[in-house]
Amino acid sequence: MQQIRLGIAGLGTVACGVLEIIAQRKQLIAARGGVEIVVSRVASRTAKPEVNLLGASFSTDLNSLLADDVDMVVELIGGEGAALELIGAATRAGKLVVTANKAVIAKHGNELQDLRNNIAFEAAVAGAIPIIASIERGLIANQFEHVMGIINGTCNYILTAMKEEGAGFADALARAQALGYAEADPTFDIEGIDAAHKLAILLGLAFDQPFNFADLHVEGISRITADDIRYADELGYRIKHLGIARQVKEGIEARVHPTLVPNSQLLAHVDGVMNAVLVKCDAAGDTLYSGPGAGGSATASAVLSDVVSLAQRRGSNTRIHTDSAQIPVPVLPMAQVRTGNYLRIPTKDEPGVFAKVAQALSQHGISIEAAIQKEPKPGQATVAIVMLTQMSSEADIEAAMDEVRELPQVAGEIVRIRVESFD
Amino acid sequence: MQQIRLGIAGLGTVACGVLEIIAQRKQLIAARGGVEIVVSRVASRTAKPEVNLLGASFSTDLNSLLADDVDMVVELIGGEGAALELIGAATRAGKLVVTANKAVIAKHGNELQDLRNNIAFEAAVAGAIPIIASIERGLIANQFEHVMGIINGTCNYILTAMKEEGAGFADALARAQALGYAEADPTFDIEGIDAAHKLAILLGLAFDQPFNFADLHVEGISRITADDIRYADELGYRIKHLGIARQVKEGIEARVHPTLVPNSQLLAHVDGVMNAVLVKCDAAGDTLYSGPGAGGSATASAVLSDVVSLAQRRGSNTRIHTDSAQIPVPVLPMAQVRTGNYLRIPTKDEPGVFAKVAQALSQHGISIEAAIQKEPKPGQATVAIVMLTQMSSEADIEAAMDEVRELPQVAGEIVRIRVESFD
Repeated sequence: MQQIRLGIAGLGTVACGVLEIIAQRKQLIAARGGVEIVVSRVASRTAKPEVNLLGASFSTDLNSLLADDVDMVVELIGGEGAALELIGAATRAGKLVVTANKAVIAKHGNELQDLRNNIAFEAAVAGAIPIIASIERGLIANQFEHVMGIINGTCNYILTAMKEEGAGFADALARAQALGYAEADPTFDIEGIDAAHKLAILLGLAFDQPFNFADLHVEGISRITADDIRYADELGYRIKHLGIARQVKEGIEARVHPTLVPNSQLLAHVDGVMNAVLVKCDAAGDTLYSGPGAGGSATASAVLSDVVSLAQRRGSNTRIHTDSAQIPVPVLPMAQVRTGNYLRIPTKDEPGVFAKVAQALSQHGISIEAAIQKEPKPGQATVAIVMLTQMSSEADIEAAMDEVRELPQVAGEIVRIRVESFD
Repeated sequence: MQQIRLGIAGLGTVACGVLEIIAQRKQLIAARGGVEIVVSRVASRTAKPEVNLLGASFSTDLNSLLADDVDMVVELIGGEGAALELIGAATRAGKLVVTANKAVIAKHGNELQDLRNNIAFEAAVAGAIPIIASIERGLIANQFEHVMGIINGTCNYILTAMKEEGAGFADALARAQALGYAEADPTFDIEGIDAAHKLAILLGLAFDQPFNFADLHVEGISRITADDIRYADELGYRIKHLGIARQVKEGIEARVHPTLVPNSQLLAHVDGVMNAVLVKCDAAGDTLYSGPGAGGSATASAVLSDVVSLAQRRGSNTRIHTDSAQIPVPVLPMAQVRTGNYLRIPTKDEPGVFAKVAQALSQHGISIEAAIQKEPKPGQATVAIVMLTQMSSEADIEAAMDEVRELPQVAGEIVRIRVESFD
């Protein structure tokens, strides 16, 4: 039986989950995977808490994990500085590394030595869902067409609460914070940065590209209103915060933003803190993977799956060298990206406004697919025109919007949310 | 670079899909997986068709694949006799085997030598979806609570058509046949046997059990009517044909039958020929995997993923020995299985019938959760009472049904469809 000696960095909820599962299930994992897991060392910069370390030695010095009795470093401290340093030092010392650190992989993965063979990071994307293994191994024979995902549970919780209860963004965020689904400073989640880290990883793996976090287009959900969610519902759509990577003729689209998803798609029904990733491939077709995107035990499940897989691979003579397959494809500038659009245009209640908007769109080659225009409520001076446009480039729709904004009848800020094609 | 020399048995759509992908993508697969795939031999009992065999030698003798220039036999002939013989001979000759043959694995897997290390069968369950890899590897650190799936595309197509168009079973089946989604003799699919083969495999893997096809409870969809689908819809449910394996205190439930699934579940929205498997685990929580369950290229995608994974494992010193973890757990007799129930009871249009039915149920400790009773249509002598009961054992609901059947007001066959709990 192959033995793998772990050095675990960090003692937060994920690390405690990992220790607990090993304590309960070491024999079963050995039988199922042919790998005996031993915890040699645990290091955490804060003092040792009351946790069963399974006989491992404890240190507050992360570098203690570089000792000879550690085969694999499990990095669960988070952050970028110390974590990146530890991962780099571990690989240089010839150790394997398992990490749940999406920021380090998305932003520094390319600098890390022999990333694809020495480092595993299933837990970095979509928590418990084996999405990285599915892309790298399950779908290994495929060309990928698109990868789209609900990959931030905080955003999905907020959008679901807004949909189900008609709550405004601020109220839904406050509730997410009260329930521990959002941080006190929620920027990282609600402005899409966390989702962008994950998308950068998915994009790199699916399209055989270096990780390229810097070139992603990133928008969050803070400008979404309960009105937009209700209008979208009337039109047969849900608003979801998606990370989208799509291969088109001219390059690869790479973008994170709120998106109208038709109710006919399973993605539209993935609610609450759940994550889901939809993958379209040439041979396998459309496959979808959903599950909890965060949480101590869900993340620990993914970490342990990596521990076993990487240990199994250690004994093998196969080497992944995807870099040899990498033909760098440029990230398509947003101006060239084509989507449908949901528009909400506040206008004065005057005749002929709709026709003027339609004309401005038409001059840029954009036609209207569906529209809602309601009678103004008593005492209201403005009325919202809501419409879905057919596919157009960002450049065209932005130019059309510039014209519409100039119309004297337009009485407020225009909201535009992209509508995704699932073909 | 490790080289793996294939001997492919069969030349149907899946085998042709495998050959086509290797022709297009040999380099890419080698870069991604570290394995160079070479096709040494192809054998098919019928004459050689006009297919590019990539330089492989061809024979109508399946035993030609046992030659020394074959490392791995890819069994794609289907059926049980010759396929089982070939797989057995190949493993005895020290070859690895990849197969898409669910019947052979479900019914004879336990007899095959060192099944978990030498034989891979991702393509046998749910086509392109990497569900076996997810259970065996992605969720390796988990105890499984239940595995439930829409694992027969024919049944799902028929039930979807009945739902969307109000078609009767016979019409929907005829359309499925016209579109190639059902065989001329559809028994194997619509009576649940195909789904049972797949469930037997999922159950064995998730619960560390020997495969036990014989003990499964199996029902098909042929008695489902458009009325039942409509009533279920009114109550907030879809009718899906599910394979269900669930660990309960007393044993493992193992059953294939039509099931009411609440609309709040993603499974309820998996339509057409799509498959999906919902897995509940202690650490990972609920994860769901959906995608095409059949088709040449989708199945070929799964076959090639197995080819690479098994080749990678060949070079490794890890041995799976799940049998050492197997504590045989009995399949729970159906009488002890507990579910909710949908009942449709045709009755004479007389006062007090509902109360009599409720009383019969109550005497067996079963209470009613929801009910629909409509005015009879003009000229109709009978009226349907439709109800959902709370959870009860099969023994109790059957005993109650025996009593209800004796009521003089009951005017036809009672339909009972189980309602699943997703807790």
